Amino acid sequence: MRKVVERQTGVALWRQIADRIRLAISNGDYDAAGMVPPETVLAGEFGVNRHTVRSALAALAEEGLVRAVQGRGTMIERKERVSYPISRRTRFSQGLGRQVKEIGTRLLGHAELKAFGDIASALGIAPGEPVIELRTVSSGDGRPLSVSSSYYPAARFPRMAEEFEQRHSVTKAFAAHGLDDYVRVSTEIVARHADSDELSMLKLSAGAIVLEAQSVNADLDGKPVEYSRNCFAADRMKLRIET
Amino acid sequence: MRKVVERQTGVALWRQIADRIRLAISNGDYDAAGMVPPETVLAGEFGVNRHTVRSALAALAEEGLVRAVQGRGTMIERKERVSYPISRRTRFSQGLGRQVKEIGTRLLGHAELKAFGDIASALGIAPGEPVIELRTVSSGDGRPLSVSSSYYPAARFPRMAEEFEQRHSVTKAFAAHGLDDYVRVSTEIVARHADSDELSMLKLSAGAIVLEAQSVNADLDGKPVEYSRNCFAADRMKLRIET
Repeated sequence: MRKVVERQTGVALWRQIADRIRLAISNGDYDAAGMVPPETVLAGEFGVNRHTVRSALAALAEEGLVRAVQGRGTMIERKERVSYPISRRTRFSQGLGRQVKEIGTRLLGHAELKAFGDIASALGIAPGEPVIELRTVSSGDGRPLSVSSSYYPAARFPRMAEEFEQRHSVTKAFAAHGLDDYVRVSTEIVARHADSDELSMLKLSAGAIVLEAQSVNADLDGKPVEYSRNCFAADRMKLRIET
Repeated sequence: MRKVVERQTGVALWRQIADRIRLAISNGDYDAAGMVPPETVLAGEFGVNRHTVRSALAALAEEGLVRAVQGRGTMIERKERVSYPISRRTRFSQGLGRQVKEIGTRLLGHAELKAFGDIASALGIAPGEPVIELRTVSSGDGRPLSVSSSYYPAARFPRMAEEFEQRHSVTKAFAAHGLDDYVRVSTEIVARHADSDELSMLKLSAGAIVLEAQSVNADLDGKPVEYSRNCFAADRMKLRIET
């Protein structure tokens, strides 16, 4: 069957084809060979030229999904997106479990801001109250998986940035302020195109999609302690809801 | 501040700008006026020509987010995406609550198939066992919100398609087979570009994104009764996780 791609859609052909190949890989269509079909075969299937197929495969290689092997073709490196659990108790490093060997979270920057709009209302504080913002990027085995902006009431957690810098862990930075436990109270998920900052921090090929999870965490009395916007590279991650 | 858009990204400028304007609307940046800024102002802000801004606004109008008013400019129609809850007990019609007045689910087609791969494993049946597939599209106030493919073990629910056609409800079609209650046991969420079928069924402007939720529902003994892939128009909906 000739697979249809759309022209004049606002999304380049190579990116549409990268999406189709990614889907075929995740459906296990190429499992028998462990390789994606040759460029000429894919070009015929999708009704495009080889140059377009090559651009699609290059984007998938950049994602770490396939690898070009000299003289053999394009090998499938990894079939699955990394699965990230959303449950009542989620700590980033525990959540990824054995899917990745090495997890790194790096602080990109921090600031003290006045909270307005959704930040103030999510944290249950008056508009204009100060909050600490932490901007981080998290990686698995050296590949960036998500960028986050998180907000903490400055009155209760004044040393959040310094403690995080020292301890490399939100849980430990909370503990340094006397908060020993916290739970997720709500999460909303949207999908959209990555903006230019996210493209660069996540090392995504242009035009990529992010899954954004907006979460509120609270102490055991239900008082909000953190509001975070976690932007996951949609090509590399899926979210698993544990109810 | 001049807002950066990326060229040569595989996503057309008008679509990137539609994304930025959508984000600004949902952040409440234009709340004071209730209107998006004039085309010339947006063109200057984004460093593009008016024609590109006009295409972006046309796409947002098609989504129902804004409306052109003769001689006045572009009004904001709706600030928020419709929020769909993912909880242990979700029934589509109840989930949307008062956000939409009229909910419609239409059967696009049905088939009996042999289950393999993820369908067989999600339903806990042997590869090759028969399943009933229902393809539906759901709308809120006449606007398509999601397209779904759902699979049911044919041995246990042989009349699923006929019962659904008569009763317009999965819950009632289950009840007709003697199953009175069921719960969600797992959900995985991915984001990707809509394929050409989804674009047409969801009446999306080309290049749009879908949020795909893959869910398993089970009876109260934990035996899977339904595996469904629900594709939501990401521009119109967000998912709300209730843990």
